Amino acid sequence: MIMRKRIKELRRNFAIEPGRDFELSQKLLVERLNLEVDVVRRAAAKTVLKINESMVMNGVHQVLRFVEDNGLRSVIIGNVMFWPSSYTRLILERFKLAEYFDRQYYSDEVGAYKPMKEIFLKPLSEFGVSPCEAVHVGDSFFEDFRGALDAGLHAVLISRRSRSETLGERGFVIEDIRGLITLLETEF
Amino acid sequence: MIMRKRIKELRRNFAIEPGRDFELSQKLLVERLNLEVDVVRRAAAKTVLKINESMVMNGVHQVLRFVEDNGLRSVIIGNVMFWPSSYTRLILERFKLAEYFDRQYYSDEVGAYKPMKEIFLKPLSEFGVSPCEAVHVGDSFFEDFRGALDAGLHAVLISRRSRSETLGERGFVIEDIRGLITLLETEF
Repeated sequence: MIMRKRIKELRRNFAIEPGRDFELSQKLLVERLNLEVDVVRRAAAKTVLKINESMVMNGVHQVLRFVEDNGLRSVIIGNVMFWPSSYTRLILERFKLAEYFDRQYYSDEVGAYKPMKEIFLKPLSEFGVSPCEAVHVGDSFFEDFRGALDAGLHAVLISRRSRSETLGERGFVIEDIRGLITLLETEF
Repeated sequence: MIMRKRIKELRRNFAIEPGRDFELSQKLLVERLNLEVDVVRRAAAKTVLKINESMVMNGVHQVLRFVEDNGLRSVIIGNVMFWPSSYTRLILERFKLAEYFDRQYYSDEVGAYKPMKEIFLKPLSEFGVSPCEAVHVGDSFFEDFRGALDAGLHAVLISRRSRSETLGERGFVIEDIRGLITLLETEF
């Protein structure tokens, strides 16, 4: 958790070389725990094998089906830490979540991390969508919410500790992912 | 299979930039199949999820236990193609094979691929072992067998099409991985 906080701080300050956030997180963890990198890589693999469906947020399938049924295009824009995006992809396939998305973009593959504008704008340019036509949904204040707003997108922050509210013209806070359905029906 | 053959040819001729064999194989596959890279990455994840124990060679556990019981150190030196080493690591954890090895070295992590000398010599230098004290076991003639011999190691080629024989002073051919036990007992 200490290293996680540190990496998030570094990303927030754009203090990591683009595309190197995964490697740096692994390196800092190795140094902090005084282990060989091989041990940390094995631990990542073991962790991925142990993950079960309980990690999937309640309501996610329902929300993603709603998005799909309404003909909206959706992509994943993800930062990686401690394990590479290949494991994130595997988890999404395993729980049948990958098929809801048109494409997936991860910091280790794209060479940019949130809150950098580039990682928000790359999918938009690939799909020919302008920032103001797009909504980003995430649970990290600086990486997701501020990052998306700064790149010109609408942004939804999932925060269990906040009450639902709006922030400025393009920012929305919801307490639960299921709140996105109402938001999409009423605000966009 | 066509792309696999191509990548193996390129590696054999040292025609790939060190550490880029995984990326190049993915790129060539994407171009050949005229797909998006995202589709190929999803296919890799799905494939890894589908793999079952039938892919593990008969006798592997027996041989690895023999190696362990005799106090020999063992490492994996692996080339990657189409999927990153993180998936190979996951498969080895899943089938309880990773625990037999002291460390794992893959071309995308090490920045060198077989038959390059560097990838054979790196683990040896890390463990303080000289090439002539080491035995490499693999099933690829150029990448594994010739590569290991050229780096100064002993080399064992697993080849179902050949009869067991010796080649020079440091080369051995076996038809089945279980032949390694006899070889270790009699030749080294």
